[in-house]
Amino acid sequence: MEKYYFSYREIHEIIQQKAKEIISSGYMPDYLLAIGGGGYIPARILRTFIHRPIVTVSLSRYDDITGKTVSIPIKQQWIDKISIDLTDKKVLLVDEVDDCRTTLEYCVNELLKTYDMELSIFVLHNKLKEKHGKIPDAVKHMFIGKEIENKWINYPWDALDITAHELLSERNND
Amino acid sequence: MEKYYFSYREIHEIIQQKAKEIISSGYMPDYLLAIGGGGYIPARILRTFIHRPIVTVSLSRYDDITGKTVSIPIKQQWIDKISIDLTDKKVLLVDEVDDCRTTLEYCVNELLKTYDMELSIFVLHNKLKEKHGKIPDAVKHMFIGKEIENKWINYPWDALDITAHELLSERNND
Repeated sequence: MEKYYFSYREIHEIIQQKAKEIISSGYMPDYLLAIGGGGYIPARILRTFIHRPIVTVSLSRYDDITGKTVSIPIKQQWIDKISIDLTDKKVLLVDEVDDCRTTLEYCVNELLKTYDMELSIFVLHNKLKEKHGKIPDAVKHMFIGKEIENKWINYPWDALDITAHELLSERNND
Repeated sequence: MEKYYFSYREIHEIIQQKAKEIISSGYMPDYLLAIGGGGYIPARILRTFIHRPIVTVSLSRYDDITGKTVSIPIKQQWIDKISIDLTDKKVLLVDEVDDCRTTLEYCVNELLKTYDMELSIFVLHNKLKEKHGKIPDAVKHMFIGKEIENKWINYPWDALDITAHELLSERNND
């Protein structure tokens, strides 16, 4: 198998399971902070189990005009103390995958420039591979839904044909 | 059947189908604007077909402290011209369900106070029922994924047990 095809059900189950572990550990954030685009769906599912308001920021690795990959992520939407004050709050950052770790590192560092808060991270998947970024020491908890191999991931929300995608995801599980 | 149980696959299919119709009609927004909490997942799926940046706002009908329903939605996250300038843009507002229509009316009116822009709406479901709110005349297009009866909706992202939910959604479709 060269690529992963994950179904919505598998993803929901991973979040369902991990959320229970998080709650059992005694940790409870004040806010879920989705990193868009990848974090929107995991954060919304997570809210079913960890019932806290969702706030979002959005980063892009692509320049909309040139279509090229950029070395420093572009802030498509950001937050500041005027829009929402997260000072002294426990905030759980949510994203779909920890790949090279550079987006997470960038996002954490940028948020900590604005807010003095307790930051933790939840990622649905962590790819077991060499990381180019580092999780800053200030991060309190790093919660991982599932560790996976370093393969290309097809998430269900990116499926142009969901029926075909679900068939491929069933074959993955055989 | 007293309640709907929608599966992720059904929802993805509705968005997949409707997005093709929207594109065929010649309409193309500059931004997708998700109304959180309900709009995050539909907006992220829609982006697969209508590839535009997602921006979010978030409204709550519940007071976090008292837990009571409020008559005017509370802005949990909002946008302004400093954070993102949508002036003169074509913006497609995305939400899960048009129920009483009051949230949509409120959201459109609040956005139009800030921005002079072309606003359209996409809702995954529209409940066929008496509406207490009115879609402001300024709204250019109102796209509806699927018209449904006035029953309680169980969305998959709210499932405490996704396996049980999927079984109930299959029974719905028998």
